Amino acid sequence: MPLAFEQVMSPLEGETEIAHHTNAGNNGGNDDQIGYKSRVTVVGSGSWGSVAAKLVASNTLKISSFHDDVKMWVFEETLQSGEKLTDAINRTNENVKYLPGIKLGKNVIADPDIDNAVKDANMLVFVTPHQFIDDICKSLVGKVRSDAEAISLIKGMEVKIEGPCLLSSCISEQLGINCSVLMGANLANEIAEEKFSEATVGYRDNREMAEQWVQLFSTPYFMVTPVQDVEGVELCGTLKNVVAIAAGFVDGLDMGNNTKAAIIRLGLREMRDFSKLLFSSVEDSTFYESCGVADVITTCFGGRNRKVAEAFAKNGGKRSFDELEAEMLQGQKLQGVSTAREVYEVLRHRGWLESFPLFATVHEICIGHLPPSAIVKYSKRKSTLPLSEDSAH
Amino acid sequence: MPLAFEQVMSPLEGETEIAHHTNAGNNGGNDDQIGYKSRVTVVGSGSWGSVAAKLVASNTLKISSFHDDVKMWVFEETLQSGEKLTDAINRTNENVKYLPGIKLGKNVIADPDIDNAVKDANMLVFVTPHQFIDDICKSLVGKVRSDAEAISLIKGMEVKIEGPCLLSSCISEQLGINCSVLMGANLANEIAEEKFSEATVGYRDNREMAEQWVQLFSTPYFMVTPVQDVEGVELCGTLKNVVAIAAGFVDGLDMGNNTKAAIIRLGLREMRDFSKLLFSSVEDSTFYESCGVADVITTCFGGRNRKVAEAFAKNGGKRSFDELEAEMLQGQKLQGVSTAREVYEVLRHRGWLESFPLFATVHEICIGHLPPSAIVKYSKRKSTLPLSEDSAH
Repeated sequence: MPLAFEQVMSPLEGETEIAHHTNAGNNGGNDDQIGYKSRVTVVGSGSWGSVAAKLVASNTLKISSFHDDVKMWVFEETLQSGEKLTDAINRTNENVKYLPGIKLGKNVIADPDIDNAVKDANMLVFVTPHQFIDDICKSLVGKVRSDAEAISLIKGMEVKIEGPCLLSSCISEQLGINCSVLMGANLANEIAEEKFSEATVGYRDNREMAEQWVQLFSTPYFMVTPVQDVEGVELCGTLKNVVAIAAGFVDGLDMGNNTKAAIIRLGLREMRDFSKLLFSSVEDSTFYESCGVADVITTCFGGRNRKVAEAFAKNGGKRSFDELEAEMLQGQKLQGVSTAREVYEVLRHRGWLESFPLFATVHEICIGHLPPSAIVKYSKRKSTLPLSEDSAH
Repeated sequence: MPLAFEQVMSPLEGETEIAHHTNAGNNGGNDDQIGYKSRVTVVGSGSWGSVAAKLVASNTLKISSFHDDVKMWVFEETLQSGEKLTDAINRTNENVKYLPGIKLGKNVIADPDIDNAVKDANMLVFVTPHQFIDDICKSLVGKVRSDAEAISLIKGMEVKIEGPCLLSSCISEQLGINCSVLMGANLANEIAEEKFSEATVGYRDNREMAEQWVQLFSTPYFMVTPVQDVEGVELCGTLKNVVAIAAGFVDGLDMGNNTKAAIIRLGLREMRDFSKLLFSSVEDSTFYESCGVADVITTCFGGRNRKVAEAFAKNGGKRSFDELEAEMLQGQKLQGVSTAREVYEVLRHRGWLESFPLFATVHEICIGHLPPSAIVKYSKRKSTLPLSEDSAH
């Protein structure tokens, strides 16, 4: 598949800067392609979306194959001051509401009009809350360039009985464009402060395009590795939340370090085996990447799924997740609890409950059918996988 | 290789109990082998050795193919009370010095005479501090049964320029018997309290013998999985300490969750790649087991290597490890620091330094050639492995 570059038809704001940076020698070896520049739009502007725009914008300035400007679609809000959020972002170069104190770069241009934001872009970065992406895609049908490529940074998906609704597939099918994913141990505020972290790009078959995404996101403090396994990488970002619920139970019951490490390991194994059963293309090695073991560790030691599950277990399951969420999360819902329910339905539907004792037990504890202590009693059951021999222990 | 059972030649103390337990139906399906009973001796009696004896002794009582009694060789000491340690253990069924408050089982028999302790055993469990095992083996030459099988629970080995001195090989070669290993996320005091944990048995080629070891150690709170990869399993138990030093640096510099997860992941990858380069038989999947990812997590969130490395980084490397060890560990030495030095020598000798940036950087920080912050700056360098293509990223 050929790379999608846009021919620059007219001199544009920032062109002088490109030339400057190109002369500085950071042109990534794309001299032969000067004159064709990729245009990037970030769809979404929460804390992670804003950090993504910051990462991308630092690279488009440096690498001559990218147009300097990065558009960022912002769901418009009016701030308490009366100023529009987009105006505030464009005036201060900060997302004053969702990532205050962090300069995004002068070349990040906030745009409240999504159609306008995407229309010229050939590289689309999707980073909205997962429950909005379906409607956003519907609204964009016919409005994106036919040669555009997408990447989804959105963690969390609905797991239906017939299988998980990969957001990358949802984006790809609705917009008729290819979609990769970027996942990893990526707490947004830490990357905003330029603390070192890693991420994994999962791609389907276009290695050259994957390298473009890697180039677009990589910085000295953000190390990106490409993996040809879009399903495996994307599933990690959703299933890890079920493991975090289990880890929270262990914390709440004060079971100690051995037990927590064992539960994390068993959870990582079920993530791998579940993914491989659903998609035979999923690779074992994906779970060694940042999207796998590293994100599971981060989520099982920090994060709200772990925290609320800990409180749930401390209360012996007497207060429901709904109640604890309301009290601890100011109206946010835990993804791990709903994902555990959805995964359970898949397991039941396919007759796989026996093969995934940790996943099944998390759900049964969440709904009060088992006490929190069951996380250890049942998760350790030895299981035989139903289909694929090579992933069974 | 046939299983090694001892024919019971004469009525022995405890035989009535065997019959009782056998009649209780927990004989593991070994009715046909009654009359041939394996005898187990535990060589070592620190906290982990005592816990091992407790695990084993609970099973020898229940499974008819084992003789009830478990001998435990104890390095004799005189307690403050004037009583000998072995007498105290045999009187109270507790290791009053190294695991007080935990009943080992009445069938654990402490013996200060190592030759006497091992002479009848056909299953030998080695669980001493790693620096003593060589002398112990030398003293036992010609004194163990020729049909005996050994297992090593000892973590830590010397890594010489010509390669790691696997303790299982050292035991095997000196005593002329086969030796498996048992490793995992196993903080002794938590297992003593019967909190759930897992372990991995690494064996060379005798699956039937591995199943015997699994049977001997498994309890409802201790889940043991066999893996045909003795080198991979044993190397995990040593190399994890280098990763723990790196994790401690990250903690001391307050670098956050993403960075710590990334460093743990990079460390696990170097453990795997280093092991595979040294022993082509090592399997990727071993690092998903308890001995791999789970033990690395436990060691990087608890444990003394992490703790002292954190203090080292907090002091900006201004106080040496020797000084901090003396202050924080009451004379104990950190294994991670010496293993990092030994691994560095191997890497330099073989020209592999570029391929293992995390391992190399840990050592260079420990000796003061680099500041603690280098753990991030250098560990993330992309590397190409020198020999084995399939383990390279």
